[in-house]
Amino acid sequence: MNSQIIQPPLVAWANGAFSHAPVIRKTTRIQDLTAVFADGQAWRSCDPQLPVYTVEMLETPAGEGELWTGVTHLNPGKVGNEFFMTRGHFHARREQGEVYFGLRGQGLLLLQDEHGKARLETVCAGSVHIIPGFTAHRLINTGSEILSALAVWPTIAGHDYAALQGGFALRVQEENQQICVCEVQNG
Amino acid sequence: MNSQIIQPPLVAWANGAFSHAPVIRKTTRIQDLTAVFADGQAWRSCDPQLPVYTVEMLETPAGEGELWTGVTHLNPGKVGNEFFMTRGHFHARREQGEVYFGLRGQGLLLLQDEHGKARLETVCAGSVHIIPGFTAHRLINTGSEILSALAVWPTIAGHDYAALQGGFALRVQEENQQICVCEVQNG
Repeated sequence: MNSQIIQPPLVAWANGAFSHAPVIRKTTRIQDLTAVFADGQAWRSCDPQLPVYTVEMLETPAGEGELWTGVTHLNPGKVGNEFFMTRGHFHARREQGEVYFGLRGQGLLLLQDEHGKARLETVCAGSVHIIPGFTAHRLINTGSEILSALAVWPTIAGHDYAALQGGFALRVQEENQQICVCEVQNG
Repeated sequence: MNSQIIQPPLVAWANGAFSHAPVIRKTTRIQDLTAVFADGQAWRSCDPQLPVYTVEMLETPAGEGELWTGVTHLNPGKVGNEFFMTRGHFHARREQGEVYFGLRGQGLLLLQDEHGKARLETVCAGSVHIIPGFTAHRLINTGSEILSALAVWPTIAGHDYAALQGGFALRVQEENQQICVCEVQNG
């Protein structure tokens, strides 16, 4: 009977690395992040192939009620004076939430409701972020090492990037070696 | 603007303790686990007040699409020769899944589908358990320290204990200081 005991996937809390399981991996590069950063000239001067973030997900059956588990690894860096960040999105199924857990690095989670009201949560090792439904979310790396965050979200949630064409209401930049949060018209 | 940065809840990966947030806490004791352990006589001879496990959950808005985050702390111990375990349940909304992450201790996650087919996964620090929909689940502590596991699950999932009146198809016991998995008619 003991031979039927399954060794499940493992995640390393220190760096978010998965083992003992196949993973789906997607890397997003500077060239993929059109109109994301405020300084278009600085963005065009970056190496287009430069990786900004990689998402690794466990292969899981999808369907109503099932959950994805994945880790986002967001590199340190800036475009102009703006910190590297993920594109950010609403879920296509707007009511679907998500939970993030900070694993390493220092950053911010930018959350924004459908009325454009934004807030920021500190991301660090062990931080827990309950993202409710109807809330767009974006990770921002304000530190000097990789920011890694574990996420669990419904497989039916999907992504809706178009709904955020107006952008987020806050931008996070470095000014005089300080982290500065700016309210903007089109973020 | 920086004053609007929110400090979210924290979880300690080493022991599953939450901080920086109110938690909902529920302890399940020997007296609450009627007809769960195989050896009724051994169960009746235990201190009825003895805590078997405590679940701590973050206070979160509930509703379609929202997710709970909680930690189960399952004490080490045995009733007769059977290891301490949670009651186990199907979700009332059967299609709803759940994700468990082992944080500390040594144990097993017992999973059983609606046809009574059971399987076991090893729980240890960093183990990841994708529990699909239509799957009952029970934690078993086979070690000598507290087994703690972090879980994320839909707030709409609910519990259905009645559906498991026939019990699980496997029992995990200690025999000659070995962990022994037994197939049973009514587990």
